[in-house]
Amino acid sequence: MTARARTGPQRKVDTFEKLAAVGADTWVATASATGGAHLVPLSYAWDGECLVLAVVAGSVTDRNVRSSGRARLGFGPTRDVAIVDADLEGLLDVNDEGGEDTARAYADQAGWDPRREPDSYVFIRFRPRRVQAWREANELSGKVLMRDGEWLF
Amino acid sequence: MTARARTGPQRKVDTFEKLAAVGADTWVATASATGGAHLVPLSYAWDGECLVLAVVAGSVTDRNVRSSGRARLGFGPTRDVAIVDADLEGLLDVNDEGGEDTARAYADQAGWDPRREPDSYVFIRFRPRRVQAWREANELSGKVLMRDGEWLF
Repeated sequence: MTARARTGPQRKVDTFEKLAAVGADTWVATASATGGAHLVPLSYAWDGECLVLAVVAGSVTDRNVRSSGRARLGFGPTRDVAIVDADLEGLLDVNDEGGEDTARAYADQAGWDPRREPDSYVFIRFRPRRVQAWREANELSGKVLMRDGEWLF
Repeated sequence: MTARARTGPQRKVDTFEKLAAVGADTWVATASATGGAHLVPLSYAWDGECLVLAVVAGSVTDRNVRSSGRARLGFGPTRDVAIVDADLEGLLDVNDEGGEDTARAYADQAGWDPRREPDSYVFIRFRPRRVQAWREANELSGKVLMRDGEWLF
C-alpha cells in the first residue's frame, strides 16, 4: 500500500534529516565538457546552507566540477529520494589554513578525516539551487522544495 | 569491522545478482551537450547482455541519451555499489510492434508496465562498456570487472 503523499513542509523536514545524516553517502553526478556523465558515491557534510564534499584532487569529479561549476546529488534509497541541483560555491585544500572549521565539521558528520589520508583531497562546497524530494509515484506532484535557491516551504 | 575484499569472480556474481534484481531502481546519470549532469532513479531490466530502461519520451534523460549516446548507472546502496558505464544500443517505443518480448521482460523484472501508463514511454537499451564494483575502501583495488565491453573474470 502506498502511503499518503507528504506535504511540502514535511518533505523539507525529511530532506534536512537526510542532509544532516551522519556517515551517509550521496550519489554525485557531474558532467565533463564533452558530454560524459560521471557518478560516484561520496561522503558529505551539510552546514545548514551548503553541502561539503571531499574529493581526491584531480579526480574526475574534481575536474568536472571545476569546468562545469555544478553537480546533481541524489540522496536516500531510490524510493525515498532527495535530489539536489547545486552550484559550486568554493574549493578549499583540506589542509589549508583557515579551513579547520570546515575540516572538523566534515570529519564529524562524514565519519572520516581527509586530512589523514595519503591522497591529496579538496573540499568542494556546493550551494543548492533546486531541491526535489519524493517517495512513490503519488509524490511526483509537489516534488520541488527549492527553486532558484529559495525554499518554497 | 571491514570484511575481507571479495575476489573478482565473486564481485561479478554479486553484480549479476544486482542486475537481475526484481523491482529495483538504478541511479541513472546522463550529461547534456552543455555540461549539465542529470540524475534520476529508474527501474530497469537486464537481459543478460544489456540493461533496459523505460523513460518518458522527451524527458531530460531521453534527450541526453540521444545526444550523448551513453550513461553511467549506479546500483546498490552506496557502500555496496556496482557502477556501469554504458553505451546506447537502441531505442524503442514501448508500444512498437516487435517490442513485445522486451516489454514483457521489462514488466516482469521492473514490476510495472510502461505500456499501461498515460505518458508516452521509450525503452532505452544500454550495453555495458565498463563495470566496477566495490563495498568498502579495501575493495577499491580490483574494482574493475569489465573493460572495453569485455568481462575480466
